[in-house]
Amino acid sequence: MQILVVNPNTTASMTDTIAAAARGVAGALTEVIAVTSSMGPASIEGYYDEALAVPGLLMEIAAGERAGAQAAIIACFDDTGLDAARAMASIPVIGICEAALSVASYIAQRFTVVTTTERSRVPVEGLVQRYGMAGRARVRAADIAVLALEDPASGAVEKLRGEIARAIEEDRAEAIVLGCAGMADLAHQLQEEFDLPVIDGVGAAVKQAEALIALGLSTSKRGAYASPLAKSYRGVLKSFSPGTIAAE
Amino acid sequence: MQILVVNPNTTASMTDTIAAAARGVAGALTEVIAVTSSMGPASIEGYYDEALAVPGLLMEIAAGERAGAQAAIIACFDDTGLDAARAMASIPVIGICEAALSVASYIAQRFTVVTTTERSRVPVEGLVQRYGMAGRARVRAADIAVLALEDPASGAVEKLRGEIARAIEEDRAEAIVLGCAGMADLAHQLQEEFDLPVIDGVGAAVKQAEALIALGLSTSKRGAYASPLAKSYRGVLKSFSPGTIAAE
Amino acid sequence: MQILVVNPNTTASMTDTIAAAARGVAGALTEVIAVTSSMGPASIEGYYDEALAVPGLLMEIAAGERAGAQAAIIACFDDTGLDAARAMASIPVIGICEAALSVASYIAQRFTVVTTTERSRVPVEGLVQRYGMAGRARVRAADIAVLALEDPASGAVEKLRGEIARAIEEDRAEAIVLGCAGMADLAHQLQEEFDLPVIDGVGAAVKQAEALIALGLSTSKRGAYASPLAKSYRGVLKSFSPGTIAAE
Amino acid sequence: MQILVVNPNTTASMTDTIAAAARGVAGALTEVIAVTSSMGPASIEGYYDEALAVPGLLMEIAAGERAGAQAAIIACFDDTGLDAARAMASIPVIGICEAALSVASYIAQRFTVVTTTERSRVPVEGLVQRYGMAGRARVRAADIAVLALEDPASGAVEKLRGEIARAIEEDRAEAIVLGCAGMADLAHQLQEEFDLPVIDGVGAAVKQAEALIALGLSTSKRGAYASPLAKSYRGVLKSFSPGTIAAE
Amino acid sequence: MQILVVNPNTTASMTDTIAAAARGVAGALTEVIAVTSSMGPASIEGYYDEALAVPGLLMEIAAGERAGAQAAIIACFDDTGLDAARAMASIPVIGICEAALSVASYIAQRFTVVTTTERSRVPVEGLVQRYGMAGRARVRAADIAVLALEDPASGAVEKLRGEIARAIEEDRAEAIVLGCAGMADLAHQLQEEFDLPVIDGVGAAVKQAEALIALGLSTSKRGAYASPLAKSYRGVLKSFSPGTIAAE
Amino acid sequence: MQILVVNPNTTASMTDTIAAAARGVAGALTEVIAVTSSMGPASIEGYYDEALAVPGLLMEIAAGERAGAQAAIIACFDDTGLDAARAMASIPVIGICEAALSVASYIAQRFTVVTTTERSRVPVEGLVQRYGMAGRARVRAADIAVLALEDPASGAVEKLRGEIARAIEEDRAEAIVLGCAGMADLAHQLQEEFDLPVIDGVGAAVKQAEALIALGLSTSKRGAYASPLAKSYRGVLKSFSPGTIAAE
Repeated sequence: MQILVVNPNTTASMTDTIAAAARGVAGALTEVIAVTSSMGPASIEGYYDEALAVPGLLMEIAAGERAGAQAAIIACFDDTGLDAARAMASIPVIGICEAALSVASYIAQRFTVVTTTERSRVPVEGLVQRYGMAGRARVRAADIAVLALEDPASGAVEKLRGEIARAIEEDRAEAIVLGCAGMADLAHQLQEEFDLPVIDGVGAAVKQAEALIALGLSTSKRGAYASPLAKSYRGVLKSFSPGTIAAE
Repeated sequence: MQILVVNPNTTASMTDTIAAAARGVAGALTEVIAVTSSMGPASIEGYYDEALAVPGLLMEIAAGERAGAQAAIIACFDDTGLDAARAMASIPVIGICEAALSVASYIAQRFTVVTTTERSRVPVEGLVQRYGMAGRARVRAADIAVLALEDPASGAVEKLRGEIARAIEEDRAEAIVLGCAGMADLAHQLQEEFDLPVIDGVGAAVKQAEALIALGLSTSKRGAYASPLAKSYRGVLKSFSPGTIAAE
Repeated sequence: MQILVVNPNTTASMTDTIAAAARGVAGALTEVIAVTSSMGPASIEGYYDEALAVPGLLMEIAAGERAGAQAAIIACFDDTGLDAARAMASIPVIGICEAALSVASYIAQRFTVVTTTERSRVPVEGLVQRYGMAGRARVRAADIAVLALEDPASGAVEKLRGEIARAIEEDRAEAIVLGCAGMADLAHQLQEEFDLPVIDGVGAAVKQAEALIALGLSTSKRGAYASPLAKSYRGVLKSFSPGTIAAE
Repeated sequence: MQILVVNPNTTASMTDTIAAAARGVAGALTEVIAVTSSMGPASIEGYYDEALAVPGLLMEIAAGERAGAQAAIIACFDDTGLDAARAMASIPVIGICEAALSVASYIAQRFTVVTTTERSRVPVEGLVQRYGMAGRARVRAADIAVLALEDPASGAVEKLRGEIARAIEEDRAEAIVLGCAGMADLAHQLQEEFDLPVIDGVGAAVKQAEALIALGLSTSKRGAYASPLAKSYRGVLKSFSPGTIAAE
Repeated sequence: MQILVVNPNTTASMTDTIAAAARGVAGALTEVIAVTSSMGPASIEGYYDEALAVPGLLMEIAAGERAGAQAAIIACFDDTGLDAARAMASIPVIGICEAALSVASYIAQRFTVVTTTERSRVPVEGLVQRYGMAGRARVRAADIAVLALEDPASGAVEKLRGEIARAIEEDRAEAIVLGCAGMADLAHQLQEEFDLPVIDGVGAAVKQAEALIALGLSTSKRGAYASPLAKSYRGVLKSFSPGTIAAE
Repeated sequence: MQILVVNPNTTASMTDTIAAAARGVAGALTEVIAVTSSMGPASIEGYYDEALAVPGLLMEIAAGERAGAQAAIIACFDDTGLDAARAMASIPVIGICEAALSVASYIAQRFTVVTTTERSRVPVEGLVQRYGMAGRARVRAADIAVLALEDPASGAVEKLRGEIARAIEEDRAEAIVLGCAGMADLAHQLQEEFDLPVIDGVGAAVKQAEALIALGLSTSKRGAYASPLAKSYRGVLKSFSPGTIAAE
């Protein structure tokens, strides 16, 4: 079972964190292929970065599918490009936000997502709404730059701890969802410290991808995710045949 | 990895169907323990049957947890007794409706649940609402008695086919969710026939249970699912210590 | 006019409080029959207790209907077993939460329910959502054990007063709903003290039951509340004919 | 117990229908005072008529309160002027739409309101939304002029029957709410004919008014329904002291 | 292009403030006709005042349309009488609340309305809900009497400043909507002071009215806003032909 | 007043249609600058095309702002890239879907969007939900390829007519919104034919852009639309300073 995990930002060290988290929970028969996008922003903080990460992300998913991956994971908590990827690919595609929220919903009635920057907060709130969790989930920002998560001296983890404590106190959070792929290595430690479930979206998505493969399910090609029609694409993305994306 | 699957109705032949579906998708290291409730209705059709199935269901989950199960599945599409079981147990508990809807949401924007009787339709619509899918999922009843699914001569499968066809035509369904544990053996065949994803909740729940175990997550004991307080229980359910349910 | 009021927990002293509140507002021609369930938990605090209270509750309602009651009230603020009872009975069945919320909605745009324990809070929030009041009602827990309401020395009423004060200040509450049948005797006193409407669900439900009887209305037997089908029920609840529930 | 029922249109024959329905369900100790507004449209069909009916309606409620009424009912299904009346009066005020929907919610999970003209349909849908019933209630218009209900030869009742039949078939209606005060005399007959609960808002409101009086509850004067501030009112409504409305 | 702006309260000095704001943003070819209602309350604070302002408002709009206005604006933030005016008039009618919220939605994801008195807060929250902004807009009251806005010595503007500061801090407001026509002159100054967009509904509505005229659009006469039917209106509003309202 | 209108697909003839519609409603002092994206798909049909259109769109908006445009319009009914553009630009940015829905809401209670292909329908339904119109707007697809709108022989306009007729009949549509920029030239003709308001999003957006400029309002830079942080962007989009986007 081969699962592609795409880090849609271009920072390879974050891919390492993501890959380790993915492999830590993957089944014995699962091979995790972790790749870094080669086009786009160094980190994804807000709507603009999200949009510019999408073409590079789509290329990696298209390449991964051609290379034999049976499912793909978008390892950014904004679920950047998820709908476009589902329309393009034949294999199932999972976002780490949707996977984390869904897993949280099995173990808690109310929970809080702790994300990084304030400019990511509203986009994540939009996802919480989209995924039908608005009545039970709140979103907080810990005021952490995404790449600061890579730097132990940044104080990022302390800020995260403070926000988790406030979520428990003020939001009646029964569980915590870590709202950034770069936090994937912290889930177990924080779960022990705070004595409540702490969910990492990367791990959650790996298990959902394995589930879809085992269940023989992939994205429906009726309706919203029908394969793109053959047409000309100008500029960096000049040619297209369904299922393939290529820069000329 | 040991997963308990409880059929909360008292019809053992349906448990066989459920067990086969569960084992068909379970991982190589997963042992599926399928049990039939010994107390309650022969089939669950509507609110009254749901309520009377719960004590027997809770006993099986309590017994299963004592015997070493690491997760439990309630194999009735009404997710009967789910909240009570989560409060009682230390291990995670998954309902097949919630698992099926969540899996459907990864592969389709719009989908239709086809359940059995009209009296089950409103309860399932209530679950669709609760799980945040009201904007994207519809519920239909195929006018099938639950136990008719056990009888090839009943015409039940033909009625199910007719309702799936209407869902595709009238609901713009991109995927179908089978709305009864007794349909678990039909998913693959119907998926091929109708050429769109068909999701069985039993299989979906097995993969979600495996996911929670692998992720080291269980029901939060803060808030809604805090363990029951020690107190006296009269009648059939006379004594209680947290985590245990016993008939005297 | 005979109205059955079932206390679904097994504590008879609480039934006395409930009966007094019911009789205090009942019409001159109304006979209130108050009964204590003989099976289930001593108090209902959370989902687990709710579920275990249902069989005993259904037996009392079935018995009451056979004995001539024209309407039944479930005197627990979680509206435990309400849907099952409606499907089973021919007479109308009213929950005290739904009655209280409905009465509150006639006299206030915004109001707050003050319930007992934190583990009851999310279930009551679920009811607020179900009854369409999520935009205007908030739920608070006063951190009171249900049976402490029976004990003047417990400080329970003081905690309740504190929470009402906070609801007025922080929630912009225009009225207060008492979120436990065991608080039924406190409504008038608190209404005077805080100079805003305070609603007790038991009294509210009595008037709704009288209303349905006077209007010649009972539960619809089309759709969700259709009478249970004849089928075998194993264990404590072995036989069933529609409208009857019997332990063998 | 004195209950004021105001017909906010100026057609006295409709007041007779309303008064009969009100008295038919009122308690033995209840005196129903039915009045016809002396200012405004002959029937209320749409937003414009609603608005012009309000001053006359408010005058009747103010006069009724001064004369000793303990509760007031607005006998138009659009709940015309309800919020203004609640702010003005000290006694509780009930709308027949809100009362009917609330009563329907006790006996059916899904129900359909059948109102008169298409131009009343959207306003009633707005009320269904406001009262939190949008997920369970539909609204239909039978294409009947309000005053045609007074005329046996108009065919109005036949149209109503047709729409009820369609509601049962197409909406899965478990109960019917009659969406016009002028239909108040038809509820019992239609209930028998169609063998499902049929709810008249006038009767429902009388029982709700009796309930509020018996429970010692009136409109909260905190927040939205605080009494109007003393200020000058020009034109037809020149002077005002809280609780009083007077034409000069 | 002639746009009628009706101040539905009877205080002419407030009309001056409104007219100045309207003219300050109107296009070069737009003539703003600002009128004060001659019937109704001196200021609109809560539901009762709203209702009593409507007949006078409708008369001004009817007169304005007869005099050649191509669009009408209701310059009260409660959008008093908006639906009735739309049904009555042939020209488009805009409320300043709906215009302000719509303009805010183009420039901010989250925003806060700051209105005057607590008794106006719930009505404005109702409008926020109606206009589909409940997920992104909050409403605050600055505890200002409407007419105090006319008096520089009243401290009203200081209270408004305090509430804006709290909205930014506590609501994560990205923009502020001024929730009273009497604040129309303050938008620019507050926008500079607080360095975030501050929206005045009067100006917003003028631009929406110009837009509808330029686009050749007016209120649909199908469905909810169909012209009133010819019928008799008693009392102050005795005769009516569609499009005309006349006091006898 | 200079307004940039970007056609985010790469088909110049569609830009001509859009430009004509924009200029047809623009004010006398407004200069409309219409540009065609030089990078991306020939037409936007579904999520994949949407995503690939965004980089080219952002470049045009960045270039337009540098060249002096005071507002920008994204002339694709999917409001492709709207959030990213708002975060990037200092000038306000308007989507034609949001503008059309907002204009429709001023003149109709219920309306229907008629878009092109089935694969665009769910994305547009998502926008209807996002903009708070889910309770009043429906979306239909006329089964038209976007570029067929350029070809009089394609039968596209006939299909559109058929769908409008069905919307009036089946949806109770009081107004129609044309759900594709390529339909901009058809609004007036269809409005006459069907005798109800027909709204073109391009025209609607031009008036909204003029409104924001006249009101002195632009996108808030607090919260969700804060300017992108300085960071490295690899590949086609290599360098970035806030407010600027450049291909290297």
